[in-house]
Parts: sequence; structure tokens; C-alpha cells
Amino acid sequence: MSDERIPILRMGDYLLVSIQVDMHDKLAVRLQEDLTETISRHVSKGVMIDISALDLVDSFVGRMIANISAMARILDAKTVLVGMRPAVAITLVELGLSLPGVSTALNVERGMALLRKQLERGEHADERHAQ
Amino acid sequence: MSDERIPILRMGDYLLVSIQVDMHDKLAVRLQEDLTETISRHVSKGVMIDISALDLVDSFVGRMIANISAMARILDAKTVLVGMRPAVAITLVELGLSLPGVSTALNVERGMALLRKQLERGEHADERHAQ
Repeated sequence: MSDERIPILRMGDYLLVSIQVDMHDKLAVRLQEDLTETISRHVSKGVMIDISALDLVDSFVGRMIANISAMARILDAKTVLVGMRPAVAITLVELGLSLPGVSTALNVERGMALLRKQLERGEHADERHAQ
Repeated sequence: MSDERIPILRMGDYLLVSIQVDMHDKLAVRLQEDLTETISRHVSKGVMIDISALDLVDSFVGRMIANISAMARILDAKTVLVGMRPAVAITLVELGLSLPGVSTALNVERGMALLRKQLERGEHADERHAQ
């Protein structure tokens, strides 16, 4: 793949990013740009990051996921990390990366359910703010 | 990624496969095995193959897509190819690969809508067969 870029799939109000390749600086920056662009263009409400293809999540990828989640939050979108392998969870904790503020779900389906639930709650919170 | 494998994401009755890496023999065979396994285990009704990350679809990948579609059909699941870039469409036709029997949609969202529509029609067809 010459034009390296991680695809962002739109599914209604949600976006799905499936990370399958080794991350490096440029690719991560590009993903963050593309994702924030897409969230704001389509007023997306949630982002699912699928990492089921990764058998290793190092501190670089961990930080990238945390960054994406923070950016999405500012743009009023929730982030759910899906498909984490058990071994990856172990490594993450061993690396001291507990991914604060990032929700997780076992697979895309549960991730979508979680987003819906969070969104319902979030909307109520907004209504309270508006009063 | 050492344990090379293309992830299959389950979303309700549908499966989503996002192809982002260069295909080779082993990977293609593994994807076909994984996919048929997943279809039959979860009684999936549709498969979406996202190729938005590919800027080139050669005859090998074209054949793989056609094979997957044929296998899915035998297992009673529809296949929709989504996210094809305009340049890829041109190359495919120039290569003489018109992908007969494979439905296409511009993006995942439309792909899902197409699957739903095909499914509704398909179910009616089944009912007719049953009469």
C-alpha cells in the first residue's frame, strides 16, 4: 500500500477504525487528522477503535489511543476500544498504561451497544446542563 | 504483526472485513477459512468487504473477493464490496475483472443498507421456494 492511511469506516453516527498495521509516527498523525476531520464533518457521536489484529500494543500505540480518545471527547464523541486480546491487556497493565478515560468492549457489537448506552446517558446530561 | 490475520468484525447479522494490507497466498487462504468458519458459527447473513484502503486491486485480490463471495453464497450469506476507489474500478475493468455476482456499495453504511434490502428480498424468495 503506497498511499498509507488507516481507513475510517462510517456506520451511521459511529466511526470504526480497525488498526491492522504497525503504527509509526506519520501514520498515527495522519489517523488523528483524518479522524478529527471525519468526526467534525459528519458530527459523529462515537468512535470504535478495533485492535483485534494487534498482538502487541506498545506505549506508542497506547498513547495514540489515549490521544484519539481525548481529541474525540473534545469534539463531543465517545471512544470505545474493542477487540483487545487478553495478552494485550496484560502487557498494557505491565507497561503502566491503564488507558484512563477509554472505554473498552470485547467486540464491535458490544462496543456499539456501549456507545449507544453512553450516548443516551450523555444526552440526558446535556439536557441537565441546558436547564 | 507476527500473527498475520485479517480481523473479521461482527456487527449483528453481518460481518465486516477491512482489507488494509497486501494480500498474499497464505493470508488469503486464512481469511477464507476464518470467514467461512465465522459465517457458519454465527449464522451470519451478510459479509461486507471494505477495500477503501487499497489503491490497487490486482487479479489475485479480485479472484479472492470473487471466491469469498461464492463461498459466502453457499453458506447463505450475501457479500457486498464497499469503499472501492474510483481508480480501482478502472483497473478492475481494464484487467477484465468485472466481479460477477459481487454487489458493491460506496461505503459501509450503504453496504449495510444494501444487505438489509437483499436480505428482505432473499427471505421472500426463500418463502416462495418453501411453498
